Amino acid sequence: MDINVVNSLTYEDFVQIFGSVVEKCPLISAAVWSRRPFRDLADIETHITEFIHNLPDSGKEGILRCHPDLAGRDLQSGTLTRESQEEQSQAGMDTLDSTEILHMYRLNAQYKERFGFPFVICARLNKKAEILHQLSERLTNDRAAERERAIEEVKKICSLRLRNIVRCDIQTKL
Amino acid sequence: MDINVVNSLTYEDFVQIFGSVVEKCPLISAAVWSRRPFRDLADIETHITEFIHNLPDSGKEGILRCHPDLAGRDLQSGTLTRESQEEQSQAGMDTLDSTEILHMYRLNAQYKERFGFPFVICARLNKKAEILHQLSERLTNDRAAERERAIEEVKKICSLRLRNIVRCDIQTKL
Repeated sequence: MDINVVNSLTYEDFVQIFGSVVEKCPLISAAVWSRRPFRDLADIETHITEFIHNLPDSGKEGILRCHPDLAGRDLQSGTLTRESQEEQSQAGMDTLDSTEILHMYRLNAQYKERFGFPFVICARLNKKAEILHQLSERLTNDRAAERERAIEEVKKICSLRLRNIVRCDIQTKL
Repeated sequence: MDINVVNSLTYEDFVQIFGSVVEKCPLISAAVWSRRPFRDLADIETHITEFIHNLPDSGKEGILRCHPDLAGRDLQSGTLTRESQEEQSQAGMDTLDSTEILHMYRLNAQYKERFGFPFVICARLNKKAEILHQLSERLTNDRAAERERAIEEVKKICSLRLRNIVRCDIQTKL
């Protein structure tokens, strides 16, 4: 999608197209629309990152709490957003056996109990073994460090989703 | 719902129950969960208000942009959230004749063109004639004043939705 097209979008179309680049947080894209005109897609990403960084810690934790568990209830029951479904599938989260699901469930539960938000990782950049390793390792962080670590993952997810919007657009044109 | 019950909710249950008190902005309730324990429902409301007020102007506009038009496309096509559907119905927005719908559509379009966000008013506190009057009148505000005016309406809507959660809970018990 050409940046001039993006800059010409009404807020309604912009939120429709970019509203899920941060999971279940259309507020963020809707806010960033105020920053038009954008130089390029990276400029949109920068504004999103700035917006997130300027939130209080509670707001950053709020973003994390809008994310589903990895290999959790939403995946099992088919109620993930389209984006999360694709990402969790790519990381092999939908092909875990029952032992692996139980292991993931227990680690997720420990993590949520410790931090008060779910374990967030960019599933498209990690495979199953690495995700389990990261989940175990990050469980030992303190809350402030882990909040920032998880927000870094939100930014990676956002970055790939932004590029996916562009790629989808190119594919549609072909 | 007793405040002790609210304070014992996991973030997942809290976001499930309170996630729509600000339209399509579960991020806000999810953030406010960090402020537990709450003294009472008014305390939750205070934290939500504080969170909104601490957002940059773009964030406040972002909240407004997550709201549907009054008597707009979402009402006509049945894609409003349950809360908005009830509120717009109570204000008589679903019984407008075609002339009234066109009038509302044109005023909404003017408003969005001028401000870059939709006209937000607490529909449960206003009837049709008052809504049309307010829409015409507020169109003459400057953007900063109107942003603050609209956010005041978001707070009224939020307050009533919070009370509705409690009321529903009492009705369920009876």
